[in-house]
Amino acid sequence: MRSIIKRSNCPISYGLDFLGDKWILLIFRDMIFEKKSYFKDFLGSAEGVATNILTSRLKMLVEHEFITVEQDMNRKTMKKYRLTKKGKDLIPLLLELMIWSSKYGDFGLETVALLNYVESLNQNRSKVIQQILANLEDN
Amino acid sequence: MRSIIKRSNCPISYGLDFLGDKWILLIFRDMIFEKKSYFKDFLGSAEGVATNILTSRLKMLVEHEFITVEQDMNRKTMKKYRLTKKGKDLIPLLLELMIWSSKYGDFGLETVALLNYVESLNQNRSKVIQQILANLEDN
Repeated sequence: MRSIIKRSNCPISYGLDFLGDKWILLIFRDMIFEKKSYFKDFLGSAEGVATNILTSRLKMLVEHEFITVEQDMNRKTMKKYRLTKKGKDLIPLLLELMIWSSKYGDFGLETVALLNYVESLNQNRSKVIQQILANLEDN
Repeated sequence: MRSIIKRSNCPISYGLDFLGDKWILLIFRDMIFEKKSYFKDFLGSAEGVATNILTSRLKMLVEHEFITVEQDMNRKTMKKYRLTKKGKDLIPLLLELMIWSSKYGDFGLETVALLNYVESLNQNRSKVIQQILANLEDN
């Protein structure tokens, strides 16, 4: 198991020991918002993660039970990754990152859609989270 | 200026381009919850950040206007760092990280205090955020 060294007794530091990385939360984004489940799909995301980085991050996430991995029933050569409750509980964190970015980033043609989404979050966050979770259940 | 390469047009990726790191959010934690303002105080935090890492992270944060830096009026040889609105707007993200960690980490003797804090957040998040902001104004 990849060793995670706990740097202090602080809960923010604890979270960052796992999540403080440019790539980890993109895997969750892909799983939560894009419903991606396969290595090749994560690899195909726009940010261009390297194969070895993706492999090591998925391994850590499985080992620490953020996600599970199993052979796909229909595509025997492929592994399917699924979120656990621990992984799904990162949804509010991702939404806050999105809200923050919507204030400070420039997203071109996607700006209006992003601002509408953030507006729906500000109006009823728990409903949006319930919808995301329901959408994941269909997977 | 340290170059930040935008990896995609995704708001989550945008945020991680700045914040996806084991150290950056600890600086915000120190400033927001501990009211730290000086290099030596950040350096003294329990996680033991290295001097060169702290220097580079503070430089990036100033360049990208998450924080400002000025000579301290009373301690002429020292620089004082302050949060901008852009930096303060990370408070909800840090709170979500804390909430997530409270569910999955073991914080020993600090567990009860953490769970009480999370409970107050769940009951009235905006009030807690207002209190944090008011507390920062006193600095």
